[in-house]
Amino acid sequence: MSGESRATWADNWLGYREEIKVVDVTIRDGGLMNDHEFADDVVRDVYEACVEAGIDYMEIGYINSQEQFPPGEFGPWKHCREEDLRRIVGNNDTSLKLAAMADAEKSDYKTDILPASESVLDMIRVATYIHQMPLALDMVKDASDKGYETTLNLMAVSTVPESEVKSALEMLVRSDVGAVYVVDSFGSLYSEQIRALCNMFFKYCEGTPIEVGIHAHNNRQLAFANTIEAVVLGANCADASFAGLGRGAGNCQMELLLGFLHNPKFRLRPVLKCIEQYVEPLRSKLLWGYDYPYMITGLLNQHPRAGMAFNASEDRGKIVQFYDQMEEQE
Amino acid sequence: MSGESRATWADNWLGYREEIKVVDVTIRDGGLMNDHEFADDVVRDVYEACVEAGIDYMEIGYINSQEQFPPGEFGPWKHCREEDLRRIVGNNDTSLKLAAMADAEKSDYKTDILPASESVLDMIRVATYIHQMPLALDMVKDASDKGYETTLNLMAVSTVPESEVKSALEMLVRSDVGAVYVVDSFGSLYSEQIRALCNMFFKYCEGTPIEVGIHAHNNRQLAFANTIEAVVLGANCADASFAGLGRGAGNCQMELLLGFLHNPKFRLRPVLKCIEQYVEPLRSKLLWGYDYPYMITGLLNQHPRAGMAFNASEDRGKIVQFYDQMEEQE
Repeated sequence: MSGESRATWADNWLGYREEIKVVDVTIRDGGLMNDHEFADDVVRDVYEACVEAGIDYMEIGYINSQEQFPPGEFGPWKHCREEDLRRIVGNNDTSLKLAAMADAEKSDYKTDILPASESVLDMIRVATYIHQMPLALDMVKDASDKGYETTLNLMAVSTVPESEVKSALEMLVRSDVGAVYVVDSFGSLYSEQIRALCNMFFKYCEGTPIEVGIHAHNNRQLAFANTIEAVVLGANCADASFAGLGRGAGNCQMELLLGFLHNPKFRLRPVLKCIEQYVEPLRSKLLWGYDYPYMITGLLNQHPRAGMAFNASEDRGKIVQFYDQMEEQE
Repeated sequence: MSGESRATWADNWLGYREEIKVVDVTIRDGGLMNDHEFADDVVRDVYEACVEAGIDYMEIGYINSQEQFPPGEFGPWKHCREEDLRRIVGNNDTSLKLAAMADAEKSDYKTDILPASESVLDMIRVATYIHQMPLALDMVKDASDKGYETTLNLMAVSTVPESEVKSALEMLVRSDVGAVYVVDSFGSLYSEQIRALCNMFFKYCEGTPIEVGIHAHNNRQLAFANTIEAVVLGANCADASFAGLGRGAGNCQMELLLGFLHNPKFRLRPVLKCIEQYVEPLRSKLLWGYDYPYMITGLLNQHPRAGMAFNASEDRGKIVQFYDQMEEQE
């Protein structure tokens, strides 16, 4: 499907496209703020809320290396061992599909990812930087051969030259990946840039069964706006999280996204209930969400790590000090 | 200028249009959260920061009726008496222009608005609902005859049938108003709707000197996104406020807008400094900004007053209770 034909939906915003799949990333992306150490009742409530809300996929954590990231130092959602998954979801006899993310160069994917027939997981999402593409494609193949649906999430796309994005797309469309994601890791992209990237992704995926996805961060309060921009253009996979829980400024808010989508299968109330009871109570400790330091790293197209360190320090709130420090480093 | 020719700029987002005027509404719109009772040092610091930041206009308050709104019950920025203005800005010997807003049916404009030659104000902005258009046009004429620049802000446009918006525009383009604003009072519009409205406004203003402006609210975290959408399409007047201070979910954040605009006359640092020292310290008392009740009123295309009352009550934080209450009323 071309970008042009995808765009016709824009003229009918009261309608909906059944093909749009919503992926909850609350526990997976949120885990970057607490070393993946969520209490079971939080994970279980998010899971149950996803089921009740009609969400398509829940990404429950990472399958990253237990050698590089020892279980004693990280919570269970860094590794998604089968026994941890089943403690929460049983056999997952629901319509919600489960996903886990594996990071290129951080995952012992060949051994740690079980055959799909032995796992409650349905999908493996491979996260990669541009220079790790060959490895990432091997990870996609491994997961696909094991029977999983797959996505490839090309991180920090805002820092990659256009020609390299195109090379990556050329490699990708020859793979059997299910979807390829535009990932605004640094929350630095404006809608015009999202539009240009999506149209590039659509062009390469045209004539293939590969869907385009969008994963946005909220450094400049554009996560929701950029997500719906991509969806209106034709992206059929949209990532979001409860209360926007995620690294730094966080993600596209699920509660906003479900309010926008018009597929009657979606329900907003279970999401609000879970946010009130389980997610918002975490905010004062996890400190995710739009804040000046993240706005500034987004403006500079940088990883939010400097903002995260600043917000965890006693200098939190000294906005001008952080701005001066970042400008000096430029 | 047609919508089409305006849009060419979208292909060159690193450039800038000199015609774009930024209007600070911090004290005016923020005054709706504290009965316009700001300490002088806050107003003075916002004023000085606007000057240093290269902002074009500062809207400092309302000129509304002292009979309807007795000075004892409201702070000085409900009336913008000349002595109050001059206490803050002296003779305003700066490049910053000053504006005040007059509400249709709430302003004794004929008597309370001095001739421009006797005032430090440069611009009168008339706020009107659709049914008050004839009165609003008389207010525009009065201000224009007195020597002011003028704008007309058509509030709550998300609730007005398209045919009536067109009738209002037909009346407006025969007036000598300087700019006409798309005002998303309830924070309920998506970018596609902003686009449709802006293009309608551009079409009527084509061939006239009337500019199109945008005033967005942040109920669904779209205030900034919708503002830059309108600017990219060709709107040349953009309202924003420091830290988004404004009624309910607040406005487009000045700090985000200045980060987006590329005119080198703009400076971000003075805005951040004022936010850190004077604006953020007000947040715990004024309670503006994105929050679930405002998201819900935005979703329902309703005035934020129910959300404001809920957030001021002891039930604040009981998101599901508010959602159920609003759904029941639908």
